[in-house]
Amino acid sequence: MEGDSALQLRIFDLNCWGIRYLSKRRQERVELIGDTLRREGFDLALLQEVWSEQDYNNLKGKLGGRYPFCHYFRSGVIGSGLCIFSRFPILDTLLYQYSLNGYPYMLQHGDWFCGKSVGLVIIKISGIIFNITVPLFPLSHQLHAEYCREKDAYLPHRLVQAWELAQFIRHTSKAADVVLLGGDLNMHPEDVGIRLLRGWTGLQDAFAEATHFEGCEDGCTLIPKNCFTDKAELLPFPLGIRIDYILYKAISSFTVTCKELKTTTGTAPGTDIPFSDHEAVMATLHIKRQGQAASDTLGTAEPMMADVVTEAQTEVGVGLRAAQRQRYSTGRMAVLALLLLLVQATAALGTLVGLGTEQPFPKLSFSLLAFAAIGILLLATGLHLFHTTEVKMLQGTEEQMRMALRALQERP
Amino acid sequence: MEGDSALQLRIFDLNCWGIRYLSKRRQERVELIGDTLRREGFDLALLQEVWSEQDYNNLKGKLGGRYPFCHYFRSGVIGSGLCIFSRFPILDTLLYQYSLNGYPYMLQHGDWFCGKSVGLVIIKISGIIFNITVPLFPLSHQLHAEYCREKDAYLPHRLVQAWELAQFIRHTSKAADVVLLGGDLNMHPEDVGIRLLRGWTGLQDAFAEATHFEGCEDGCTLIPKNCFTDKAELLPFPLGIRIDYILYKAISSFTVTCKELKTTTGTAPGTDIPFSDHEAVMATLHIKRQGQAASDTLGTAEPMMADVVTEAQTEVGVGLRAAQRQRYSTGRMAVLALLLLLVQATAALGTLVGLGTEQPFPKLSFSLLAFAAIGILLLATGLHLFHTTEVKMLQGTEEQMRMALRALQERP
Repeated sequence: MEGDSALQLRIFDLNCWGIRYLSKRRQERVELIGDTLRREGFDLALLQEVWSEQDYNNLKGKLGGRYPFCHYFRSGVIGSGLCIFSRFPILDTLLYQYSLNGYPYMLQHGDWFCGKSVGLVIIKISGIIFNITVPLFPLSHQLHAEYCREKDAYLPHRLVQAWELAQFIRHTSKAADVVLLGGDLNMHPEDVGIRLLRGWTGLQDAFAEATHFEGCEDGCTLIPKNCFTDKAELLPFPLGIRIDYILYKAISSFTVTCKELKTTTGTAPGTDIPFSDHEAVMATLHIKRQGQAASDTLGTAEPMMADVVTEAQTEVGVGLRAAQRQRYSTGRMAVLALLLLLVQATAALGTLVGLGTEQPFPKLSFSLLAFAAIGILLLATGLHLFHTTEVKMLQGTEEQMRMALRALQERP
Repeated sequence: MEGDSALQLRIFDLNCWGIRYLSKRRQERVELIGDTLRREGFDLALLQEVWSEQDYNNLKGKLGGRYPFCHYFRSGVIGSGLCIFSRFPILDTLLYQYSLNGYPYMLQHGDWFCGKSVGLVIIKISGIIFNITVPLFPLSHQLHAEYCREKDAYLPHRLVQAWELAQFIRHTSKAADVVLLGGDLNMHPEDVGIRLLRGWTGLQDAFAEATHFEGCEDGCTLIPKNCFTDKAELLPFPLGIRIDYILYKAISSFTVTCKELKTTTGTAPGTDIPFSDHEAVMATLHIKRQGQAASDTLGTAEPMMADVVTEAQTEVGVGLRAAQRQRYSTGRMAVLALLLLLVQATAALGTLVGLGTEQPFPKLSFSLLAFAAIGILLLATGLHLFHTTEVKMLQGTEEQMRMALRALQERP
């Protein structure tokens, strides 16, 4: 591989859907993923949603011979679910956490409790520095079936994450020769979040650039044919949707081309069971040294970048106003609950002082009301604090986007 | 300034102690800080603990003429408290949040609720790229009075923060010519956290390097002479302690020297009131272009680096075991509370089914016990989740340190 003037790199990317007790046939699938990775001999395997550390350790044990270097990113209560297996030494790692990640009270979605992280791994291959980002965008919900911009309450959070991911890549990649990103971005290719991420980092989409493609139509990675996907969710998309990506960019005097891109097509090769509810994406990249340095910095490749940032900023602004309203209404509720408690305390005190006076309410409902007021006070205060943070982070992102727009407009 | 072959940069750094309703004579001091900054004409002012956005806006209004560029980092419920005023355009900003920051139940310390962030600002002056980091280490407590390693329960968290700060600087600074850090690090110069940060980034201490120094003895920035400091806290340190730093490093073909370092000495110049409970640190740096490139990467300048990382790793390991114990005991408490609730539910159900049977407990104590059990269950579950996250982050840091040690040992 290294004898040729071009370096060839084979990458495997998969959202493994490895939720303990919840994901179907998890252990069997993890075994299968491990067997395939060992047999196929990729150079890099970027895995997401490996929520169980036991699964990671099993993979590590199985893959030690072929992929002697690996890293599991730890974060949050459940973990980040992100890990990487590599044939080449890992020089350094860094974990970045998004500042926003859904709502704690949307228990049915659970995003808030999941990892909300991006993992960065730095690898040197044949003297070329690779910055490899493994993101997971957990804000998946409403993306598929009820996909409807008016309804998508998560869009501002997703845009904050896309922006933070783009900023993280820009700031950490300056000494890299090649930037790679492989992961589940939970966004359609034409979504504003993807356009923002790609535009602001200059990353190219392996699917769009591939010389040769083999796999699901349109490169879809969540398809009705896969036995684990939710068919109802995918009804509006008969072909499926493409939400898992391999993106790349050469920074210094290198060029990267995608010679081949493949996806699995509903089942793992040679079996009747899929790796996961997502399809795996496999890319073969060729990295060549150029005579002269290309663009030195991660630039904004897209000419329409200002429009994209403006669109994203508008959506973040919408989210900001919603968060401000929520902050206000939860604050008001907390104040009302406090007032009720004060009234009750005064009444109780009155009864105590004028000892003979009969208490105006029956004891039980009086205490129940007090308990309810305390409960509401605590809940509303908690939510008020949460929405205060949300407002601050949305404001911060909006301001950063404004700064970016100014910079874009000042350019010739 | 730019006519000379060396670029001269004057930096002002201050922990402003601007807590609304709590910090004494806050508005008067913010006015004073603004007046001084306007009069003195520094190039950069790095401010911490500006918790009130109103204070920031007042400063912004006042300083607009002299420092046309500024940024306030928003995060958390209260904010990050970090801001920067600059004579030169700010190209980009990034906020990084530490993964650990004290304990939510240590209400009296309040760290967990404060911002737990590092702000990064990128500025270009005369063609030189400056990466300027403004950190705030809120884990101050027990540092001063009861300073005693055995008692310092926060040390592992502080080391995680120091490590994350160092990693953040290493990863983001690769395209910078000069790296600057100015802020309240809440650690003594000889503390393992400072040695780790400086060693792992190669940053130099302006106080140690300054050609000319003027100010408090030993460069102290928290001194008994300041009317706002807690005298009892500083009893073991009659001169005070040095916890506010300006650190710097040239990365590419530049050299940085500190020509002058000053601190205030208990009062703001020409007045009888201090800027803050901390002293301000003011540095004059000279930045010169070198003939040949110096070390290209942020290296580990200190030869004893492996020892420092080992020491830090040991302390993180101690914290990890404590966190594991806490995780276990809070988990056990949650299970016990759940069992108690189940027993109560069974008893209540029994009474309901065998309708004639008398309830074995008086109603009031029965319900109070149930409420207590629910309270304990919720609290213990919350704490269990918190300590689970803590364990994960400490494990992650320990692993990164192990990786760093391996890399250090493999070097010639």
